[in-house]
Amino acid sequence: MIRGALIREFEAVFGKDAVFAAEADRLTYAYDAAPLEQVMPGLVVRPTSGEALAAAVRLCGENGIPLTVRGAGTNLSGGTVPLPGGVVVVTNGLNRILELNEEDLYAVVEPGVVTAKFAAAVQARGLFYPPDPGSQAVSTLGGNVAENAGGLRGLKYGVTRDYVMGLEFFDARGETIKTGSRTVKCATGYNLAGLLVGSEGTLGVFHRITLKLIPLPAAQQAMMAVFDRPEAASETVAAIIAARIVPATLEFMDQFTIRAVEEYSRAGLPVEAAALLLIEVDGHPAQVAEDASRVEELCRRHGAASLRVARGAAERNKVWEARRSALSALAKLKPTLVLEDATVPRSRIPDMVRAIDEIAREFRLAIGTFGHAGDGNLHPTILTDKRDREEWARVERAIAAIFDRALALGGTLSGEHGTGIAKACFLDRETTAATILYSQRIKKALDPGNILNPGKIIPAPA
Amino acid sequence: MIRGALIREFEAVFGKDAVFAAEADRLTYAYDAAPLEQVMPGLVVRPTSGEALAAAVRLCGENGIPLTVRGAGTNLSGGTVPLPGGVVVVTNGLNRILELNEEDLYAVVEPGVVTAKFAAAVQARGLFYPPDPGSQAVSTLGGNVAENAGGLRGLKYGVTRDYVMGLEFFDARGETIKTGSRTVKCATGYNLAGLLVGSEGTLGVFHRITLKLIPLPAAQQAMMAVFDRPEAASETVAAIIAARIVPATLEFMDQFTIRAVEEYSRAGLPVEAAALLLIEVDGHPAQVAEDASRVEELCRRHGAASLRVARGAAERNKVWEARRSALSALAKLKPTLVLEDATVPRSRIPDMVRAIDEIAREFRLAIGTFGHAGDGNLHPTILTDKRDREEWARVERAIAAIFDRALALGGTLSGEHGTGIAKACFLDRETTAATILYSQRIKKALDPGNILNPGKIIPAPA
Repeated sequence: MIRGALIREFEAVFGKDAVFAAEADRLTYAYDAAPLEQVMPGLVVRPTSGEALAAAVRLCGENGIPLTVRGAGTNLSGGTVPLPGGVVVVTNGLNRILELNEEDLYAVVEPGVVTAKFAAAVQARGLFYPPDPGSQAVSTLGGNVAENAGGLRGLKYGVTRDYVMGLEFFDARGETIKTGSRTVKCATGYNLAGLLVGSEGTLGVFHRITLKLIPLPAAQQAMMAVFDRPEAASETVAAIIAARIVPATLEFMDQFTIRAVEEYSRAGLPVEAAALLLIEVDGHPAQVAEDASRVEELCRRHGAASLRVARGAAERNKVWEARRSALSALAKLKPTLVLEDATVPRSRIPDMVRAIDEIAREFRLAIGTFGHAGDGNLHPTILTDKRDREEWARVERAIAAIFDRALALGGTLSGEHGTGIAKACFLDRETTAATILYSQRIKKALDPGNILNPGKIIPAPA
Repeated sequence: MIRGALIREFEAVFGKDAVFAAEADRLTYAYDAAPLEQVMPGLVVRPTSGEALAAAVRLCGENGIPLTVRGAGTNLSGGTVPLPGGVVVVTNGLNRILELNEEDLYAVVEPGVVTAKFAAAVQARGLFYPPDPGSQAVSTLGGNVAENAGGLRGLKYGVTRDYVMGLEFFDARGETIKTGSRTVKCATGYNLAGLLVGSEGTLGVFHRITLKLIPLPAAQQAMMAVFDRPEAASETVAAIIAARIVPATLEFMDQFTIRAVEEYSRAGLPVEAAALLLIEVDGHPAQVAEDASRVEELCRRHGAASLRVARGAAERNKVWEARRSALSALAKLKPTLVLEDATVPRSRIPDMVRAIDEIAREFRLAIGTFGHAGDGNLHPTILTDKRDREEWARVERAIAAIFDRALALGGTLSGEHGTGIAKACFLDRETTAATILYSQRIKKALDPGNILNPGKIIPAPA
């Protein structure tokens, strides 16, 4: 519990309107999008200035209270689940685009700016901010940086990490750390921005983020290829990459997901298809025309039963809205949804699709698989009910099996959802004990009081 | 001095052929390409296996001897200048390309692989590794990663940091740290690879590096634009970027540099020109044709006196060889060459060119300016003689003035040469005291014995 006197200290800094101590308010921040146990925070605060944000860090530090920064809480690995009785700092009051520099192709933003709103503001200037995590309509840029969020365009355009040019953040003492630059090149000091990206609030609290922008591609073309066999779809993915074509987006959807999405969105998806590929190529119009026709040929050669090319922006948007609704569509089917993101080198996608199928059968589970096949980042999605303890035990074994198969194929535990609480205990399957110790040393040196979102990413030292 | 008994321990690990204790041998490793004082190491070792590399770290740690890893020593900020009596670990015996994966677009290399050799091996497979630091003919990939090396293509393709997918390295205890992945996306654990890029050997010793590859652009076109006024050239740079064209390369050369290069290389450069822009656009042939004609138009509109388009690969290579010889050409003119790389947002290039000119006049120095104008990364190059103490004092003041102007224009101390010894003492002009403290805490936690290339990047704690 947080003492009344301390609550009044927070109120003095933030104003009464920005400090939430009532149980009903706190409950809203007791969980994120990962299927984990709720943890009740002691207090929720909503800073609207950098000074207030720094003061929150200092007050927590001085009082030994753990602090969890939260954007939209769309996190899928428990990175924004607070500590019992801890403080949740909500960033949606820090939502200004401070600078959008068209000449030098960068923007400076506060952490609470919503990803899709930012992307739209950038696009309105004829520029492009590619990272588009599934939750972009509500997720925040601060959350994206903290999780190193990915999205549908990772294949060609990379992930959030590839767009962070600089950061200003507060360390565990509330002091300002400034790293990186507004220049394309920067080799000054340690690359602290590189370390902070994906650090899930454990090493600092973001105040200002400098993001790289690129020119908007002149043209794009979306396509949908329908397959009778999932293997044919996944082999087509490998064939496209092997042909040195890098689509902007190359998404896979299995029959289970297709049917759930169609039920949910009525987008006109072919419910009899065993699998779909949703593909978009972009760039110069000549490049787009050429890539599209080569992709079409590869789809047919690898057994696509049919191929639909989106005509116009409306049809294109319909395809992507359907894809973006996959998670919501699946979530409606069962009380608990486990969205995994173990990732493999792209050429191993056929093996991974097969492995997920085997695991579903072995553990008698409903697993819908969709995701970013083009960058090896599939989302096997287990539909279950956490209250069914016998089934949940099988779910946990299936998750471990998915991780093991991904690692055996040269992959990684998480492509884009982060490590959080959910995967911290699996880290030693992927990396060495010395790596975990190295990480713990960094955490301890930078946050000796263990105030900044403790317990995320790395298992606590023994 | 290193004791004879310890030398014999090194010899037992490395073999006598790979341990160099003679003064003449050690002298070769007492400096790098930065104009700094020589520092004599106590011993030089040349491991040819990961085990030997780890053993070198352990032996140094156990004996409290500072260790400096050295690729080709082309470093321009003193990052590879050893500590007095320290050990230099030369990586040219660790020079294997371990994997070049065409399907998944990555390579795994040892640190001593020469950059240009690697780029050629990649290109032979129809793939592309874009980072091309000026010293690429001899520089090593390990050195490039340690310095976060840039090059001529930073503008469109980014720098070394943008291509490091994963790292295996030894910590100060010689333990294996494994971070990142062979997958495009990876959000597992801390982004230690991000922290290690540009860390100049102070946080770990690289063993294996996983680098991202991309498809080779189908076409390219090189051009040379000749200007009567340097301002016209630098304004053209800003105009090209403002037109949303991102050339692969956009280089600037002032008259001083043009004449030095022509004297050196006889490439046929126009010695009467006040400034040159060397421009290359690449991509799909249609894109290249369109970009080239738009660039041509912008050059003419901003006052280019003439424009030469390279016909064929031979003419193209000639242009770039001339550009790449700029440093060598200038170095021949005077005993000491100071190559700076303070960097500004691209739109401020005209201001920076003017500022450098003013500084040259104010301090009565010969400064040749060339470099990567397209990414704001100019190389003002001061020609001097360090033995002339009065002039050297003016050089030091001019360097500080260049830094201050770059920072005032929203820039950074180093675009691509790193901080090393040369710029460590200027860090506090760019960032906060808390940032330096934050960096020192990381260093101390990860290398409590201060073994790994101490004194680089951050000033030692008071």
